[in-house]
Amino acid sequence: MKTYLNPSPEQWPLLAQRQTVASADLNETVKSIFNDIEKRGAKALKKYTQYFDGVTLENLKVSETEIEKAAAEVSADLQKAIQTAAENIKRFHQSQKEISKKIETTSGVFCWRESRAINTIGIYIPGGTAPLFSTVLMLAIPAQIAGCKNIILCSPPDKKGNINPAILYAAQLTGVTQIYKVGGIQAIAAMTLGTDDIPKVDKLFGPGNQYVTSAKQYAQQLGTAIDLPAGPSELLVIADDSCDPEFVASDLLSQAEHGGDSQVILITNSEKIVSKVTAAIEQQKAVLPRQSVVEKALENSRALVFETIQKGIEFSNFYAPEHLILVVEDAENKIGLIENAGSVFLGNYSCESAGDYASGTNHTLPTNSYAKNYSGVSLDSFVKKITFQKLTSKGLQNLGPTIELMATAEQLDAHKNAVAIRLQKLQNGDYN
Amino acid sequence: MKTYLNPSPEQWPLLAQRQTVASADLNETVKSIFNDIEKRGAKALKKYTQYFDGVTLENLKVSETEIEKAAAEVSADLQKAIQTAAENIKRFHQSQKEISKKIETTSGVFCWRESRAINTIGIYIPGGTAPLFSTVLMLAIPAQIAGCKNIILCSPPDKKGNINPAILYAAQLTGVTQIYKVGGIQAIAAMTLGTDDIPKVDKLFGPGNQYVTSAKQYAQQLGTAIDLPAGPSELLVIADDSCDPEFVASDLLSQAEHGGDSQVILITNSEKIVSKVTAAIEQQKAVLPRQSVVEKALENSRALVFETIQKGIEFSNFYAPEHLILVVEDAENKIGLIENAGSVFLGNYSCESAGDYASGTNHTLPTNSYAKNYSGVSLDSFVKKITFQKLTSKGLQNLGPTIELMATAEQLDAHKNAVAIRLQKLQNGDYN
Repeated sequence: MKTYLNPSPEQWPLLAQRQTVASADLNETVKSIFNDIEKRGAKALKKYTQYFDGVTLENLKVSETEIEKAAAEVSADLQKAIQTAAENIKRFHQSQKEISKKIETTSGVFCWRESRAINTIGIYIPGGTAPLFSTVLMLAIPAQIAGCKNIILCSPPDKKGNINPAILYAAQLTGVTQIYKVGGIQAIAAMTLGTDDIPKVDKLFGPGNQYVTSAKQYAQQLGTAIDLPAGPSELLVIADDSCDPEFVASDLLSQAEHGGDSQVILITNSEKIVSKVTAAIEQQKAVLPRQSVVEKALENSRALVFETIQKGIEFSNFYAPEHLILVVEDAENKIGLIENAGSVFLGNYSCESAGDYASGTNHTLPTNSYAKNYSGVSLDSFVKKITFQKLTSKGLQNLGPTIELMATAEQLDAHKNAVAIRLQKLQNGDYN
Repeated sequence: MKTYLNPSPEQWPLLAQRQTVASADLNETVKSIFNDIEKRGAKALKKYTQYFDGVTLENLKVSETEIEKAAAEVSADLQKAIQTAAENIKRFHQSQKEISKKIETTSGVFCWRESRAINTIGIYIPGGTAPLFSTVLMLAIPAQIAGCKNIILCSPPDKKGNINPAILYAAQLTGVTQIYKVGGIQAIAAMTLGTDDIPKVDKLFGPGNQYVTSAKQYAQQLGTAIDLPAGPSELLVIADDSCDPEFVASDLLSQAEHGGDSQVILITNSEKIVSKVTAAIEQQKAVLPRQSVVEKALENSRALVFETIQKGIEFSNFYAPEHLILVVEDAENKIGLIENAGSVFLGNYSCESAGDYASGTNHTLPTNSYAKNYSGVSLDSFVKKITFQKLTSKGLQNLGPTIELMATAEQLDAHKNAVAIRLQKLQNGDYN
């Protein structure tokens, strides 16, 4: 982790740079798999599953029996932990429900909006050694609260043709309606286009490697909404003397273990803190199993020392971190200064892993400086907000002349006429 | 307008089809203009303005003097109408402000979210004969309420090098911070990349032709957020005997005059209503100036007769119209059935043009069935919602074991360690 003292604003763009992974242009691969699945459906899906996941499957759909059996394999302790996390996530996302307010903008003109669930959503959960059941909670719980009718989950099977029991347990607990053993580009293609088995979804959620990311981008071009643009995970910690350097070190490491392309940034107003945190990182790192991953991530990471915490927050706004830990004196009174961040953790006891798993906030967040223009996943991500309006005859009489004038000025005569014809009948006394 | 009696669900996909405009692949054109503007900035902008808009400009930025002068050219009546509309739009969008609620999900674990304005937004307003000042109101007013620091507006100049006075008046009224005389792909490129003159924006808003649409898609690939995927405008009217057929006809025509690619759909439970509406359309159409446009739009349009209004609403949900007028008995009690729509107008006096201009709702709405998975523009479109959390030491003690168990099961040891190291110190009595 290289240290920079009082970097000047000219240096900021370089210091805010993420590691750019030279991603292969996967467009052609993605298109050809989409075309194949559009033409041959389940047959093509099974072929790709055989090829990429090394397993021949009769049925892609996970049966009720399989789910029950798998759930029983999850230890009682882990079941309880997942339940606790699920309750917190539910509580927080339920608080995001919007209460409809009817506004009378002009006398007799009433406007309001109401939320409606997106009908069918698709959740992609990557395979690999670690089962990301926490992401199932983060996506299926708000979908369930929103009232999505179909909550589809796709995840690649292991060599034995199974999905990890913890994923199935979490899916069952959170109201996922259908689960399919299919991964990669082919899973995204199936949910985008629909097959005989797998329903076409309205919106796609979930993380994935560069193949999945490319496939989601292509899906978006075809009209399927997606949760967020993708990028490697990142953490920025702003710490002053009130921090415990060992805690800070543990948080930076928890982010670094996500992948070699992760980035962690430490911002402080004291060089001493940098030394202490660096020393603690060396010590804690020694016992971690994913050392090579952590070391690779730390190579892309930086410590920045600013004269004031306020200047540090300015840099943080420029960087727009996915996760921001603010462990400074009087942290809660400084949050007004925060402009760009995915999720913010305040004080010594709010470690990032609390939000990753169980505090209740969502862990699907904007990376790669997208916190400047995107929000993380929330209940909002699973609904559309529809506006409604009702004008009474009086309301139209009050507002009509305004509309007529504006329509005329925009040279839209039929727009004007829609008002004029009504006002005329009202004036004639045909209505009241 | 062709009529269909009780179309079967098998026919619905065909009946819900929008007119597909064979759009040229503009990717290469878009990329080359973006590249040129990235390299040569204002010089390239001026070149394209000369080429596409036929005018040579010294300054692309509209000066304060020009704005003042133009505003004075707008008639007092139109100024007042714009002000009235602006007040209603402000009132309704202000009601969309979210009040932050702090939730204690577990004892000692506090989660909440707060909105922050997107810093810099770009508004594109097309040129042409009709000045779309109403779109300025719809985009700049919520941006101002959100607190966006820079509200940039680009619009192509006319042959004399001017932007329509009504657009400048609306921009001045609604807090637009900078206005530039630049249009088309080059305007979108300038706002996406930034030039010496024009700031790089975080999010792009506004309508446009296929060139602008392609450029916005490309901007999105480069990381700039956009308001909505584009498509031709559309209206679906559901009417029963309680409707006034002349009013319905006027609404269908107001939609049809937008463009030859617009679509209008009439749904009713009575063939008589179709005849009456069709007759009224013929009559009203005769006096409209944009007759050829209207006729072209009506060619893509349909009347569907269902046995019940409820069935008609089902079709409407399948179609997912941008605008939906519901003029049926007891309309307000039927809105619970509406699942997919951009904006809904209830009863005989709620004509679409009210929402297009002045009632207060936004007119930037999802078209082309995107109402299934996208909301229209609202205050939400101009903010990010950042989550915050604070765990007290007790909070971490309560939730810590849950996080540790989940992190272990996901094989993320450093995530577990971030909790363990804190719990250990608390147990040692180092903190309280």
